[in-house]
Amino acid sequence: MTVFSVWAPAARRVEVEVGTGAGTGAGGARHEMEPGDRAGWWRAEVPVSGETDYAFRLDGGEPLPDPRSLRQPHGPYGASRTYDHSAFEWSDARWHGAPPQGAVSYELHTGTFTPAGTLDAAIERLDYLAGLGVTAVELMPVAAFPGEHGWGYDGIGLWAVHEPYGGPDALKRFVDAAHARGLAVYLDVVYNHVGPGNKLAAFGPYFTEAHMTPWGPAVNLDQAGSDEVRSFIVANALMWLRDYHMDGLRLDAVHALEDHRALHILEELAAEVDAFAASAGRPAVLLAESDLNDPRLITSREAGGYGLAAQWDDDFHHAVHCAVTGERQGYYGDFGSMAAVAKTITGAYFHNGTWSSFRGRTHGRPVDVLHVPAHRFVCFIQDHDQIGNRAVGDRIAATLAGQPRRDGLLRAAAGLVLTAPFTPMLFMGEEWGADTPWQYFTDHTDPYFASAVSAGRKAEFAAHGWNEDDVPDPQDKQTFLRSKLDWGQPDREPYLSLLGWYRELLALRRARPELTDPSLDQVRADYDEKARWILITRGPLRIAANLGPEPVRIPVALGRQATVLAASSPEITANSGVASLPAASLAVIDTDV
Amino acid sequence: MTVFSVWAPAARRVEVEVGTGAGTGAGGARHEMEPGDRAGWWRAEVPVSGETDYAFRLDGGEPLPDPRSLRQPHGPYGASRTYDHSAFEWSDARWHGAPPQGAVSYELHTGTFTPAGTLDAAIERLDYLAGLGVTAVELMPVAAFPGEHGWGYDGIGLWAVHEPYGGPDALKRFVDAAHARGLAVYLDVVYNHVGPGNKLAAFGPYFTEAHMTPWGPAVNLDQAGSDEVRSFIVANALMWLRDYHMDGLRLDAVHALEDHRALHILEELAAEVDAFAASAGRPAVLLAESDLNDPRLITSREAGGYGLAAQWDDDFHHAVHCAVTGERQGYYGDFGSMAAVAKTITGAYFHNGTWSSFRGRTHGRPVDVLHVPAHRFVCFIQDHDQIGNRAVGDRIAATLAGQPRRDGLLRAAAGLVLTAPFTPMLFMGEEWGADTPWQYFTDHTDPYFASAVSAGRKAEFAAHGWNEDDVPDPQDKQTFLRSKLDWGQPDREPYLSLLGWYRELLALRRARPELTDPSLDQVRADYDEKARWILITRGPLRIAANLGPEPVRIPVALGRQATVLAASSPEITANSGVASLPAASLAVIDTDV
Repeated sequence: MTVFSVWAPAARRVEVEVGTGAGTGAGGARHEMEPGDRAGWWRAEVPVSGETDYAFRLDGGEPLPDPRSLRQPHGPYGASRTYDHSAFEWSDARWHGAPPQGAVSYELHTGTFTPAGTLDAAIERLDYLAGLGVTAVELMPVAAFPGEHGWGYDGIGLWAVHEPYGGPDALKRFVDAAHARGLAVYLDVVYNHVGPGNKLAAFGPYFTEAHMTPWGPAVNLDQAGSDEVRSFIVANALMWLRDYHMDGLRLDAVHALEDHRALHILEELAAEVDAFAASAGRPAVLLAESDLNDPRLITSREAGGYGLAAQWDDDFHHAVHCAVTGERQGYYGDFGSMAAVAKTITGAYFHNGTWSSFRGRTHGRPVDVLHVPAHRFVCFIQDHDQIGNRAVGDRIAATLAGQPRRDGLLRAAAGLVLTAPFTPMLFMGEEWGADTPWQYFTDHTDPYFASAVSAGRKAEFAAHGWNEDDVPDPQDKQTFLRSKLDWGQPDREPYLSLLGWYRELLALRRARPELTDPSLDQVRADYDEKARWILITRGPLRIAANLGPEPVRIPVALGRQATVLAASSPEITANSGVASLPAASLAVIDTDV
Repeated sequence: MTVFSVWAPAARRVEVEVGTGAGTGAGGARHEMEPGDRAGWWRAEVPVSGETDYAFRLDGGEPLPDPRSLRQPHGPYGASRTYDHSAFEWSDARWHGAPPQGAVSYELHTGTFTPAGTLDAAIERLDYLAGLGVTAVELMPVAAFPGEHGWGYDGIGLWAVHEPYGGPDALKRFVDAAHARGLAVYLDVVYNHVGPGNKLAAFGPYFTEAHMTPWGPAVNLDQAGSDEVRSFIVANALMWLRDYHMDGLRLDAVHALEDHRALHILEELAAEVDAFAASAGRPAVLLAESDLNDPRLITSREAGGYGLAAQWDDDFHHAVHCAVTGERQGYYGDFGSMAAVAKTITGAYFHNGTWSSFRGRTHGRPVDVLHVPAHRFVCFIQDHDQIGNRAVGDRIAATLAGQPRRDGLLRAAAGLVLTAPFTPMLFMGEEWGADTPWQYFTDHTDPYFASAVSAGRKAEFAAHGWNEDDVPDPQDKQTFLRSKLDWGQPDREPYLSLLGWYRELLALRRARPELTDPSLDQVRADYDEKARWILITRGPLRIAANLGPEPVRIPVALGRQATVLAASSPEITANSGVASLPAASLAVIDTDV
C-alpha cells in the first residue's frame, strides 16, 4: 500500500494516477482520492509498493506533478515518483554538527564544480575541501529545476533533488561523505518564488496578487489560505534538515518574502529550526540572503528579532571589491573608500542609515555591536551573484587581469575576508584564483522561457552599454560548459601559490581565537584614505593591508615588538612596531610577544 | 518678504504664482524659484507680506497647490494661502498634558457633532465633555478634503485645516479651549494614502507602484526619493504637536503603510514624537489603528518594538458587539462567545495566533501581558468605522431597537468598556445612547469621484444582499445631515438615564485605581458560556456582567462580604459573596470591604 495525499482546497474531485512509464503521469491507473483529515487535503491508499510514478488530476484535468514530490525523474514538469526517505543507510551517527562561531563556508555549484557536474563527482573533491580548511560546504540550490543545467534558483520541485545532479540518494551520499570528513553542509533554498511553469496555483492559493515581486505575484504568506503555504515552506525546510541531515539552510533573497503577519515567516522558520536543532541535539542554522541591512533578522527573538543564525553581508563584498578593483558602477557607487572597508569590518553594514545613491534613499540601520555576535554575518569577496550577474561572469582574478599588482591584490583581499570578524565564505575556485568565468546559464525547455531569458539577458546589459554580442547567451550550452572549474589550475602556478596563501590564512584562523572572537565592539580599524592602507585590531593581532600602489609604513604597535604571523609578500617586515608593506599586500601581525 | 519653498526634484523650472484672487492660483504674479539648499528643493523670496494666495507651476504647467500648504481657503484643489503659525495667542501655558494611563477618549467628528458642524461650535460642547468625565477628545481628520462635508479620510491638503470646519485658527481655538478644561486633544491623521485628485505625484515620487494598496500605488516609504516623503510625514506629525499643541495623533490604518526599510516609518515617527515630547516637557502620543494584531507596534523600542503609545483594539469591539447583538456576519464570524470576551479582556487580542475565518488564515500573536501595559490598547464598543461602515450607519442603540433587553444591554456594554483594563474610547453620542444614524457621507466635487463613490457604496452592500435603495447615497447631503447628533436627546429619557450611567462609570474609573492598573497579567475573567455571564477580577474589584436572557447568580467572592459600587439595574444584589444579576445587567463590586 502507498498513501498519496495532496492539498487542493478548491478542487471538487482529485484523482491520483499511478504507474505510468510515459513520464507525464498520463496512462496510469486512476484512483479517486477522498477528503483527508485536514481541511482541503485529499488522500488515497493505493495497492502499489516500491517506487512508482504518479501524478494528480484535479477535477478531471491534466496530470500534474505532486507539489511535495520527493522525486522528479522526468524533470520538474513530468510525473512524480514515490521515494522512501527511510531506505538510505547513513553512516554519520557520530556527526554532531558544527557550531556557527568559527565556521568558514565554501559555496559550491554542483553542475560546474566538477567536469561531471554531479553530487557524486563532488564527493570526490571533499578531501580537497577538508584539506583546504573550510568547515562547511554551501550547496547552491538542488531543488528540481527545468532542463539539465542552471543556477538552480528556478526550482519547481521544491521537495525533490535535481535528477541530473543524481537525485535524492546522491544528495544523501554527499552529505554523509561531507560529515565523514568533518564538513557541515548548508543548502540554498528558495522560498521567495517558484520557477516558471510551475503548477502550484492549480492546487491552491500558493501565490497572491496582494503583493508583487520581481517574479510576479508573491508567494502567499499572509492572505487567505496562507497557513498551508507557510506549512509547505516550514515542512520543506525541516525535511532538508531531518531527512537529508543538512546542517543549515541558506534562504534566498528574504527581502522578497512579502509577509505582513504579526509572526513573520522568517521568525516562524527560525523558531521551528531551533526547535528541530534542540530535539536533534546538533546545530541547525538559517542563513539569510537579505538586502535590507536590517539587524532584526539576526537579532535574538528574546530581543525582538527573528533569531536567524546569520545573514549574508553584501556590503562587505562591495567595500572590498570596490577598494580592490576600483569599480564604481551601479550599486558599487557608494563604495571604494578605505573608510567604507573600515566601517564595514567594524560595523558589518556600510549602509546603516546612510544615503544609498543606488537606491535614492537612506538605507539600513546600525548593528548593535555590543550584543550581536560577529559571526552572524557571512562575508565574502566573491559569490555566485557578484560574479555571475556581471555581463561576462568574470571572477575577480579575471577582472584584475593585466593589473600589475593583480596577485598582490588577490592576496590582500583574501586576507581581509579570512581574518574578518564575520563568517567567511569562499566561492568555489576562488582559493586558487580561478580565472575561468562563472556565467549566467540556463536550460529552459519551454521555448517561451528559453527565448525570454536569452533576450532579457542581452537587453539588460545592452541597457548598460554592452554590445549584445559580447554577452553570453544563457541558453547556449557553451555558457554552462565554460563556467566549469578547471581542476588543472590548482596544480600549477600562479594558482598553486595563491592556494597556499588561502590554506595558510585558514590555518591561522583556526589557530588564533582572536580572529573568530564574536565581540564586534572590540574590533577597531584605522586607515589612511590617501595611501590606501588599513590596520585592523583584533586583540593583540593586527591585520595590516596596503591596497595602494606605493609601499607604506604602518604603525602597528609603536614601541613594542611585533611578529609577522602571515605575510602575503616576502618583502613585508615589522620592526620597532612599524610594519612595512609593499604595494598590494597584507600581513597578520602579533603584537603580544 | 515671504519665502516660498517646495520639493520638486524632477522639475527643470519652478515658479510661484502669488496674489491671485481667483482661487485657482492663476492670474497672479509669477516668480522664478531657485534651487534651494536641500537637493530637489526650490526657493523664492517674494516681496509680499501678510496672507496671500499662491500656487506653484512646474515646468510652466498648471498652477498647483502647495503640498505643504497651511491653508486652502478655496478647497484642497484651489490655490494655497500663506499662514503664520506664530500669530495665534495661546492661553494654555499651564497645560502640561495628560498621561496615557487613566485616559478615556471621546471620538468626535466635527461636521456632525454640532448643528453648525464647525470647530467653534464644538468648543461650546467642551464643558459638557469635561463634565462627562472623559480626559481627551479625539478629532476625526481635519486635513483639507474635497467638498464641504465628509469623514475626512480623503484628505488632500495634509498640512491645512478643512476650511468649512473653520480653518487653522479655529483648530487652535479648539485645542486651547480643550486644554483650558483639562481635556487633551488627539488628532486623526492619515498617512497611508492621499485623497483622490491630489497633485502630489506631479511634485515628486510621493507614491510607488512597488506596493499596491486598496487606494492604489502606496505612499512611497521605501523606494527612491522616499527620504523626502518620510520627512513630509514626520514633519507633518510634528507640526500638529508643536504648532497646534496637539497631545497626540491617531494614525489611520497603519497596516497599509508599506515599508520594507530596516527602520519602519512607525518606529521613526514614534522616536521623533518621543523626542518632541521630551523637549516640550509634556506627553505626546501616537495611537495606531492597526488590523495586524502585532504587539511589535506597541512594544517599547528597547524591547525591539516600534514604541507607539497605543493601538486601537478592534477585537475588543468585535467581542463585545457580537456578544451583545448576536451578529456574526463578515469579520464578526469568529466572535460572539463569552470566551471571546474573556480572552480579549485578559489578553487584548482575540486573534493572537488563532484561526480567523474571515481572513482564511491564522492571525495575530500573543501580547506579552507581563510587560506591555494594558493602557496601550484603546478599547471601544462603538467607533466611526464600526458604525459608519454598516449599510445604514446604525449605532448599537438603533441596532438593538425592539430588543426587549436593549437598555440593559447598552448599560452592560458600557460597563465592560469603561471598566476595561485598556484605554476606553467613546464615539460621540454613545454616552446617551444616541440612535440617530452615523452614515457614510461624502461631498466629492469632482463628478467622476462623486459618481464612483455613490455607485461603489451601493454595489458593495448589494453584494451582501442589501437592496440598493436602502443604502444611503454618500453624496446625498441628507445622508450627512441625518448623521448629525440630536442634542435634544440627552435632556430626555431614556437617553438621560443612560448618560447618568456613563457618568457614574467614568467617575468610578477615576476613583478606583484598580480599574486603570496597567498590569494586564493580573486581570482574570471567568465566564459561563451557556448562561452568558462573565466575571472580571481587577484586584479586589469584580465586574460581573450578565448578557443572557435569564437572571444569574455569580459567585464573586464566596464567603466574603461584597459591596456593589455600581449597578446597571436596581435589581442587582450581592449577598454572601454571590451577586444576583437580572438579564442584561452589569455591576461593579468591591470584595475588599
